[in-house]
Amino acid sequence: MKQFQDLFCVAMNIAILLSNAIAAPQDLHLLPMPAHVSLETGRVAIDSAFTVQLSGCSDPRLPRALDRLFQRMEAGTGIPFASQPIAGPDIKSATMKIHCGGPGEAVQSIMANESYQLEVTDQGVRLTAPSPIGVLRGIETFLQLIVLDQQSFFVPFVKIEDKPRFRWRGLLVDVSRHWEPPEVIRRNLDAMAAVKMNVFHWHLSDDQGFRVESRVFPKLHQKGSDGKYYTQAEVQEIVAYARDRGIRVIPEFDVPAHSTSWLAAYPELASAPGPYEIERSWGVFEPCMDPTKETTYSFLDSFIAEMAHLFPDKYFHIGGDEVNEKQWNASARIRAFKARHHFKDNRDLQAYFTRRLRQILNKHGKKVMGWDEILHPDLPKSVVVQIWRRQPAIDDVARRGYAGILSYGYYLDAMRPASFHYDVDPLGKKAENLTAEETARILGGEACMWAEFVNSDNIESRIWPRTAAIAERLWSPSGLTDARNMYRRLEYLDQELELMGLRQHFNNLEMLQRMAGSQDIAPLIRLSNLLIPTGNGVRQRTRKYSSLTPLNRMVDAASPESSAALQFDDLVKSVLSDRSHAAEATQQVRKTLTNWRENEFRVKPLLESSFLLEEIQPINKMVAELCSKGLQALDYIESNQKAPEAWQKETADLLSLAEKPQAEMLPAITASIKRLAEGVR
Amino acid sequence: MKQFQDLFCVAMNIAILLSNAIAAPQDLHLLPMPAHVSLETGRVAIDSAFTVQLSGCSDPRLPRALDRLFQRMEAGTGIPFASQPIAGPDIKSATMKIHCGGPGEAVQSIMANESYQLEVTDQGVRLTAPSPIGVLRGIETFLQLIVLDQQSFFVPFVKIEDKPRFRWRGLLVDVSRHWEPPEVIRRNLDAMAAVKMNVFHWHLSDDQGFRVESRVFPKLHQKGSDGKYYTQAEVQEIVAYARDRGIRVIPEFDVPAHSTSWLAAYPELASAPGPYEIERSWGVFEPCMDPTKETTYSFLDSFIAEMAHLFPDKYFHIGGDEVNEKQWNASARIRAFKARHHFKDNRDLQAYFTRRLRQILNKHGKKVMGWDEILHPDLPKSVVVQIWRRQPAIDDVARRGYAGILSYGYYLDAMRPASFHYDVDPLGKKAENLTAEETARILGGEACMWAEFVNSDNIESRIWPRTAAIAERLWSPSGLTDARNMYRRLEYLDQELELMGLRQHFNNLEMLQRMAGSQDIAPLIRLSNLLIPTGNGVRQRTRKYSSLTPLNRMVDAASPESSAALQFDDLVKSVLSDRSHAAEATQQVRKTLTNWRENEFRVKPLLESSFLLEEIQPINKMVAELCSKGLQALDYIESNQKAPEAWQKETADLLSLAEKPQAEMLPAITASIKRLAEGVR
Repeated sequence: MKQFQDLFCVAMNIAILLSNAIAAPQDLHLLPMPAHVSLETGRVAIDSAFTVQLSGCSDPRLPRALDRLFQRMEAGTGIPFASQPIAGPDIKSATMKIHCGGPGEAVQSIMANESYQLEVTDQGVRLTAPSPIGVLRGIETFLQLIVLDQQSFFVPFVKIEDKPRFRWRGLLVDVSRHWEPPEVIRRNLDAMAAVKMNVFHWHLSDDQGFRVESRVFPKLHQKGSDGKYYTQAEVQEIVAYARDRGIRVIPEFDVPAHSTSWLAAYPELASAPGPYEIERSWGVFEPCMDPTKETTYSFLDSFIAEMAHLFPDKYFHIGGDEVNEKQWNASARIRAFKARHHFKDNRDLQAYFTRRLRQILNKHGKKVMGWDEILHPDLPKSVVVQIWRRQPAIDDVARRGYAGILSYGYYLDAMRPASFHYDVDPLGKKAENLTAEETARILGGEACMWAEFVNSDNIESRIWPRTAAIAERLWSPSGLTDARNMYRRLEYLDQELELMGLRQHFNNLEMLQRMAGSQDIAPLIRLSNLLIPTGNGVRQRTRKYSSLTPLNRMVDAASPESSAALQFDDLVKSVLSDRSHAAEATQQVRKTLTNWRENEFRVKPLLESSFLLEEIQPINKMVAELCSKGLQALDYIESNQKAPEAWQKETADLLSLAEKPQAEMLPAITASIKRLAEGVR
Repeated sequence: MKQFQDLFCVAMNIAILLSNAIAAPQDLHLLPMPAHVSLETGRVAIDSAFTVQLSGCSDPRLPRALDRLFQRMEAGTGIPFASQPIAGPDIKSATMKIHCGGPGEAVQSIMANESYQLEVTDQGVRLTAPSPIGVLRGIETFLQLIVLDQQSFFVPFVKIEDKPRFRWRGLLVDVSRHWEPPEVIRRNLDAMAAVKMNVFHWHLSDDQGFRVESRVFPKLHQKGSDGKYYTQAEVQEIVAYARDRGIRVIPEFDVPAHSTSWLAAYPELASAPGPYEIERSWGVFEPCMDPTKETTYSFLDSFIAEMAHLFPDKYFHIGGDEVNEKQWNASARIRAFKARHHFKDNRDLQAYFTRRLRQILNKHGKKVMGWDEILHPDLPKSVVVQIWRRQPAIDDVARRGYAGILSYGYYLDAMRPASFHYDVDPLGKKAENLTAEETARILGGEACMWAEFVNSDNIESRIWPRTAAIAERLWSPSGLTDARNMYRRLEYLDQELELMGLRQHFNNLEMLQRMAGSQDIAPLIRLSNLLIPTGNGVRQRTRKYSSLTPLNRMVDAASPESSAALQFDDLVKSVLSDRSHAAEATQQVRKTLTNWRENEFRVKPLLESSFLLEEIQPINKMVAELCSKGLQALDYIESNQKAPEAWQKETADLLSLAEKPQAEMLPAITASIKRLAEGVR
């Protein structure tokens, strides 16, 4: 669907971007790119005779993985494979032979071996892995190899040796600020598995909601969730679903701050007297647990005992971020406690809290993780630190002896392009001087989907496909940095995800339709492809939002990245630099800008007829003006004329105006128009 | 999505077809149209303050229906209603007050009262119904009333009194020839409820598959289904899901013929010695149960005892169609039995079988239904006859004293347009001379989705939105026959279904993408919108098909009806008859035909690059030639010239060629081009 959305915008992307032809490994539809790929001449046809043989170590996840393999091959080809039996190890004729070298872990750990070898030769397909997780990864690669041409569906002859660069490749989903139903979580797990991610970080509690059923403290979900929470049965199903896909589930219960929803249920945990209510707005709030009361720890001990059982993973995330010190400072009792313990400040007090909590978690067999605010001279080295701010840098954290996970630069709610995240490497330049031991402490990274402005309508479009770029950064060799090639493969991956049932484009179209009533939304799609939503920060400064504010406006629907604008920018670059194709590119840029400019009037009646669309009239006009300006620039460039100063001034004014958000969005083509305008001189 | 598909084809349909403006009842997005609607001036705004009050008779279905109401309002507006509480009867201020006058039936019957009154006034929304089913129907109408404009989402002031014309408004889904997973069934039930249909006729067994778990005779599902069957738990869930939506579930187990899948499990039931295997191809086959053995009846008695419990509805469908007489004629024992009983032919023998089966079903509390072949002088009047053939006509059946349900004219696999089915009225001209008593025997109708050529990829696009036209025929007053207005409302309904999660368009796009590999499918969408698949009959005559044949070609993906072609035909009519708009229409027809003709070359590279698309090269060329011919005709018409005879001959040849299926499809615009060509003379 993405495909034909783009058609409205850039009519000539067919041959450039996507074709069925495969001449080199980078033409394969692989994302993340495996460590070693060699493409050879030949193919194995995929038809209804396809069979699979499974040998080696047995693991109940593998037959289920093969069921999904058949289902996805059926979805991808239309050939009815679904009732295909799995051949026994004695049958020599199977198209695909899978060998699993060793058993899986009872609970998947950070040490799981995810490597595999995949060979497609005239002997058929051979997938070998030392563990069930490696088999799962290899199956995903195999599925991405299937293409079609004039003759058949097939996989090309390849030799692939693959293993991940980092062992922690995660996605955080905040289900507190807006809740997500289990099916949305499952779809995201499907997508994570497709790009070989292995950690689902489930941000389950925050000021705005407590999202897990607690049988020990039932008021937590009863009073803290508006009825929107996961039952324990649902949690177990999701944990099992993730495990089946080689994904660990790390729960996060954010304490001592970000805990208003707990306090709405149990105000006695707070540092100031209640009552409390679930927080509806966004920000950093005063309510904070009282780290000085023993009852706080006995409560957390009982709670963690319950949750430690529900979430089998070794790691347990306690948050620890953004403590607002007001309640602690205001309490005479807490001040006295600090004095008694010779704590010089609230950071010392939080360190005390973290230490106590770590003891409890260790007792229940868990390792502790927290956000970078938990760093403190007293913090035990066994605690894993997740870096979300510019400082401390991950290399500093590693030097100080802590295992670190990078999320700074991976915040999806910032609405940055995939290429921005792709450039962020946990072992970037700063880490070059680390010792091998220090380097090994950098475990990987996590994309973060904070949910101030996402609900089940738009969460998939905010996470996918952009997160695949992060997945590749964390899995593939560090030398792989060609963003253009990544984007090309991202288009394929985007299609693959849709076929798997993800709704990243479909839901966006539904949102546009909803804004337009029953009218034809084609011009609105075209406009939306030229608009980029602003990030979390800008939006919060622009308006007063709460968890009850409808997310039904263009800024909620427009994609975080415009592939139309991206392709357009490539064309503009050709106009300016690529002498051999400049004439053709100029013509295409002109045609595209003319179409976009004309769209202003096509979309206008829609904008005027809906209270939800009214606000985008100014930015619709702005886009058209940018197009006009681009066309004028093109005229000067083509005729090799110098632009008058007045024009240059006017253009500069327009471009600076275009950099100010309107209806919380920015035109996607401003940089390209600027490039054209600069090309005039 | 439909919307912007059409844009490719007919660029000017925006203002004509769909707008937000509502001036008369037919502008409302109601389908089926209620019996009485009056539109008044004023509105009730739909915003986050919306509340519902429920009073009167309590029924556990109603609170669940209100949950769905809130969910669908949330999906439709983006306003977070989902955690809205239902106001108690004492709260006077609710936006919507629902009163349920009486209790529901333990098992919904054919006599259920489905009427309701819905008033939207300055007092808010008031929905009153004598029964829970009426409330369900009224909620669907209310949801269809929600629109938006410059100010807000709202429902206009209306007064609606509504009740169905027929009490049997069904959809048959054949899950034997291709199985459908439970979620597909649920989506179809959602859609049925949206158009107020009340019978889900579940065709559960046939030669190609036996689809229900039987605990009494487990070999039925084990050997008869390839593992694709509904567990009893799944059946119970689906029956409950349907009941929640006011839909009865009628199981059909087709006997004595169409029963190869039974015989694969229990060959001793057959009229000739086994062994048998599940039938893979389509047609009428020889295997048939032996009606002369007492063991056949004891088997069926035990089986029906089990199924009677699983399917609580009073009615039970025994099939009875298309008995192939070969096995009966070949068996000396059966011939002797017939002689002994003085049966003059096999019809007498089948009547004996039906009589015995009726006794069994009656014993288990069921009423019998069967296809029209069961009609026989000995058939008891209590048996309901479903008419699928041209003869017997439904009025004859009613005259003979039987209750009848019409399916002749409602076969969805025939790939006829919605308007064709809309014209078929169970109480058509032939029924005019019936007495009131005879008329009352005509219970209604059932759309039939036979599954030779549908699987879960395309079933939704074959059923929806066309079936809504049948739903309106069966619900709304007989005088409502304006197909053009029906089509307009059908577009809205189509959008509503998508918002509910139906996949009638989304799946088709996925199928196109699959055929094109990863290429841009925009030109392919445009072509597919100009192609109509041939029906079941033509396809079976064209190729050898089986249940293992992939349904992954254009004929499987293209929609049964082209709204682009439909709108184009309207324009052509304007060119030829509507003097006042002829010039404008001519211009639009020219532009459209030019675009379509140009598409031939845009789509060509795709067709050449995929083995699945190769076969449509000739019909792609044919479409372009039809467009050229149409443009030439337009030239003659505009210049008021007579066309040379050679041109006329050439045109006639082309048009007759276009009426022959190519790749099992027909161009959607042939009739319009013919119309233009005839306009030349």
